[in-house]
Amino acid sequence: MTVIETTRARLKQRIVDVLADDLAAVREELARQFRSPSMFVQDVAEHVSRFQGKQIRPLLLLLSARVSGISQHERRRAAVLAAVVEMIHAATLVHDDVIDDSDLRRHVSTVHRRWNTETSVLFGDYLFSRAFHLAATTGDAEACRLIGRATNRTCEGELNQIGARLEQSVSERDYFRVVQGKTAQLFAVSCRLGARVGGASERLQSQLSLFGGRLGIAFQIADDVLDLTETAESTGKDSANDLANHRMTLPILRALRLGGAEERERIRGLLFSADASDQRVLRESGLLQRGLESAQQSCERFAERAVRCLRQFPDSEERRLLELVAGYSAHRSE
Amino acid sequence: MTVIETTRARLKQRIVDVLADDLAAVREELARQFRSPSMFVQDVAEHVSRFQGKQIRPLLLLLSARVSGISQHERRRAAVLAAVVEMIHAATLVHDDVIDDSDLRRHVSTVHRRWNTETSVLFGDYLFSRAFHLAATTGDAEACRLIGRATNRTCEGELNQIGARLEQSVSERDYFRVVQGKTAQLFAVSCRLGARVGGASERLQSQLSLFGGRLGIAFQIADDVLDLTETAESTGKDSANDLANHRMTLPILRALRLGGAEERERIRGLLFSADASDQRVLRESGLLQRGLESAQQSCERFAERAVRCLRQFPDSEERRLLELVAGYSAHRSE
Repeated sequence: MTVIETTRARLKQRIVDVLADDLAAVREELARQFRSPSMFVQDVAEHVSRFQGKQIRPLLLLLSARVSGISQHERRRAAVLAAVVEMIHAATLVHDDVIDDSDLRRHVSTVHRRWNTETSVLFGDYLFSRAFHLAATTGDAEACRLIGRATNRTCEGELNQIGARLEQSVSERDYFRVVQGKTAQLFAVSCRLGARVGGASERLQSQLSLFGGRLGIAFQIADDVLDLTETAESTGKDSANDLANHRMTLPILRALRLGGAEERERIRGLLFSADASDQRVLRESGLLQRGLESAQQSCERFAERAVRCLRQFPDSEERRLLELVAGYSAHRSE
Repeated sequence: MTVIETTRARLKQRIVDVLADDLAAVREELARQFRSPSMFVQDVAEHVSRFQGKQIRPLLLLLSARVSGISQHERRRAAVLAAVVEMIHAATLVHDDVIDDSDLRRHVSTVHRRWNTETSVLFGDYLFSRAFHLAATTGDAEACRLIGRATNRTCEGELNQIGARLEQSVSERDYFRVVQGKTAQLFAVSCRLGARVGGASERLQSQLSLFGGRLGIAFQIADDVLDLTETAESTGKDSANDLANHRMTLPILRALRLGGAEERERIRGLLFSADASDQRVLRESGLLQRGLESAQQSCERFAERAVRCLRQFPDSEERRLLELVAGYSAHRSE
């Protein structure tokens, strides 16, 4: 293991130690939500439950609740809401896979590959629906409204991404508008919900929401970098998905901006080529190197700006963990 | 116009007269929900708003509220919830079209035909999300829970339909389990929400919910019959969609049950043939005639059983209209 991997493993262990009971409650709730009396639904649910990854959104929610001083009797509600944000995330993964026509997700075949497109679309809807339903069982209409607002913006972000691609937009403004929706919103609302259930003031709820949003942007840029640098073996999903789908991610936009006229032409030519192997050529050409470095710098800056939002909270183990999560989100290897 | 068309037009006019203000409020709310600052989202939204049809779910909700004696100041909330159920329905249409790979919906090209699959999947999600968000703005967590429970079951019904098809199930029990989910739930919850906002007792809410559920089954069977009998010109959507997708609908199940061994073999052979023209042959062969008649009878029986649920409500114009809607749902021509 590298140094960074060792430290990451330690961080994970510390989080698990701190949140042990809460995480067990989230796992139980998710298991309950993934059970169905219908054999077919159960089959698909069991398959999808294998996609479970870092669960960063539930962790953010639970840690945000802790730094806000959540009382013992609100912990159950926090665990339910943590399960809700994870299910919404899972729903978007299932739909993303059908959209990108991906084969793999966390080393497991995607739903539309294992069954068909129909099953992917409907199972994603089912997860969305179960998530909203579960949120409503808390009896907190305002939490439902916040979740709905976040998913509205998430979907808008994803739709704007299509619009930007159809226009072959190379504007960073368009890129950040997309990311602000498709990734930042669910991170932000996870932190806000945690703060809310933890009893934080409106002002501190906004601070944690801002923390989550900035962290989400850092996380997405790191994802964009990984898509261009990592292999399917390490990420467990198809590599160069963005390239294959002609998505203008930050490393590419920066490579275009920083490159000379000739480099720009070559990048564009390979990027929009109908020959899929050209996108592999682009990935391996070194043409994107400066763009990757510049994007990585921006990613780290967003993570730092996120951490600054935590200053108003008293020093605590949980605040320290939130800071570490932000740091590691900018230095991901999967 | 035929007699039935004339009477249908009159019924529509009576409903419009009775619910004029409410329907205007629903239209306004839908227009508001279909507006977006994003140009691309707005484009798709405008296109999808042209799918709007009979709006039977909002009508059921509003009429259920009326027979329950809704007070003037609750009317606004009823209109919002009516917009919610219509948006959920619209979301399922957008996703159904991509699943069925349909070309037409209400004489307009489907979203994935006009744009692409990605846009269909995401715009459907967007509509779901906006619907849940709008429901939450009423501040009524229990309404959100009821809506979530209904959509859970709707999705389960649709997933069970895939399961049944993969097994080539010819069981009516499986068929009704699917329909009970995919169509009946949204009808039932529309009526229940109307009753709830109208101030009906728990018992009367359940009666109206039962009315809606039975009506939904009648509506779905009528839909199954239309799929086999009507042309794309009259319905405005692809005809024989169910056949093309090898879906075992009630007319087919009944044709199999009522036919002799030889007929059954021919029907099965044509139904599961990989040659798409064989499904057209089946449709035009007359082999399904007895099945269609038997299914139509069941449809009418469900509509009658639905109407019986209304007996506990005092006689009123609105109750009479609910009865008529049930009657016409069993005798649809589009």
